[in-house]
Amino acid sequence: MSDDAERRVRARAWFEELRDRICAEFEAIEDEYAAATGSGPAGRFERLPWSRPDPTTGGGVIARMTGQVFEKTGIMASTTEGILSQDFRSDRGGDDDPRYWASSISLICHMRSPKVPAVHMNTRHFRTAQSWFGGGADLTPMVPVEADTADFHAALKAACDAHDSRYYPRYKKWCDEYFFLPHRNEPRGVGGIFFDQHDTGDWERDFAFTRSVGLAFLDVYPRLVRRRLFEPWTAEDRRHQLIRRGRYVEFNLLYDRGTAFGLKNGGNVEAILMSMPPEVIWP
Amino acid sequence: MSDDAERRVRARAWFEELRDRICAEFEAIEDEYAAATGSGPAGRFERLPWSRPDPTTGGGVIARMTGQVFEKTGIMASTTEGILSQDFRSDRGGDDDPRYWASSISLICHMRSPKVPAVHMNTRHFRTAQSWFGGGADLTPMVPVEADTADFHAALKAACDAHDSRYYPRYKKWCDEYFFLPHRNEPRGVGGIFFDQHDTGDWERDFAFTRSVGLAFLDVYPRLVRRRLFEPWTAEDRRHQLIRRGRYVEFNLLYDRGTAFGLKNGGNVEAILMSMPPEVIWP
Repeated sequence: MSDDAERRVRARAWFEELRDRICAEFEAIEDEYAAATGSGPAGRFERLPWSRPDPTTGGGVIARMTGQVFEKTGIMASTTEGILSQDFRSDRGGDDDPRYWASSISLICHMRSPKVPAVHMNTRHFRTAQSWFGGGADLTPMVPVEADTADFHAALKAACDAHDSRYYPRYKKWCDEYFFLPHRNEPRGVGGIFFDQHDTGDWERDFAFTRSVGLAFLDVYPRLVRRRLFEPWTAEDRRHQLIRRGRYVEFNLLYDRGTAFGLKNGGNVEAILMSMPPEVIWP
Repeated sequence: MSDDAERRVRARAWFEELRDRICAEFEAIEDEYAAATGSGPAGRFERLPWSRPDPTTGGGVIARMTGQVFEKTGIMASTTEGILSQDFRSDRGGDDDPRYWASSISLICHMRSPKVPAVHMNTRHFRTAQSWFGGGADLTPMVPVEADTADFHAALKAACDAHDSRYYPRYKKWCDEYFFLPHRNEPRGVGGIFFDQHDTGDWERDFAFTRSVGLAFLDVYPRLVRRRLFEPWTAEDRRHQLIRRGRYVEFNLLYDRGTAFGLKNGGNVEAILMSMPPEVIWP
């Protein structure tokens, strides 16, 4: 197998493995909650395969769950190839040859409890004439709790520092800049890390870093969920949560590049808009 | 008074008069509903003045109501002036002199009953080195009813035809093209008319046409509301309505030029995002 082919296979296999491990962990949380509260059946992921209109150009599987803890969560692992649309060529190293190959995992959790933060995580490998990794994770509590924010940042910092001490400050800053709503002069949440076009020239090292980010997420987010899972909340907390979710919608539709890229490059609409919260109010 | 100043005064006065007449009509519908059902107090508009950060550059009044019939309606009349941001100059005749003056009425209704269509109406006068009118009205039923759609189109057609028989076909087509969600390959609603940079060279005539569009709306929409007001509906109808509202959000944040213009030119965020539905689901 050529280097190119082998790297594609390994990247894809990792994103799918990570998807499976996260699904298992989230279902375990559903089990714990159902057992502790006796409040009904634990949520289970449903897996929906999708392919592009021309299936030879790829597709993926959306794992989604409507549970008791996870009000709406979607985890998509997909692998696609094709021709970059004009708008995205210069950005993505496709000026000379607009063909691309991409594999990714992308995840969002909107939680029933306003005490449990929403979260987003995505890592991806992108290959044109160039090759790079991108991704990140960021936390959106409805009301920030300092201990949770600190633990989330610490987990990502450790993942970064294990590879290069310059990564964390750079990618944390990028996250703060990226997940920002200029029209409201508000950050989307409390941040995390964001990286794109990460290419040190050492593919193995960059792939290892990308795996570490995914594993850090898999470690820290379930811990935060379990910490807040049984805290009581009021109708007022819920209302606040539904309003804050409106900001999430505004960000994703007005500013998010992944959303724009997907919608303009024949992505799966249901998969791309999986990030939309299940229930939102703009009072 | 110069022609320029007189035209500004008259355009602004019209948009504010139309706002007042629409508010009165909507409140009358609230009264009728409350009287017929005995279900509680009729909704009333609340008027919130706003000004730009530099108040010498204008502001407006948002009239908004949360009623029994009108779940959320906002009618904004505003008059602003300033410097066009770079992105919007060529589009709006501001290449040589980027100063602009604009006055408008903009309205949106999200209705409690899934049997009553949502609606949007906007008319505006814009002055740079050039001067023109723009606007339109479009209907978004949750489940289209042919008679309502036909009456809505007929009212706008009559308003257009009274001025020039070429307007209606052109502006109906523009509306169908404009209020379209490419990512879903779906129209936003059943259409209406949309016009922009309307300038025949005869200001009086163009202003009269713009007034006619506003009056056609004031005639037809209340008729449609009264026609459907007392129809029963189910939880399933409501769920469908909340899902359809998601399409409205997607359109406004992904594609609407007025939203983008407002957010990038220091418009009032609450006023611009008044169009967001009060409650939405993305299941």
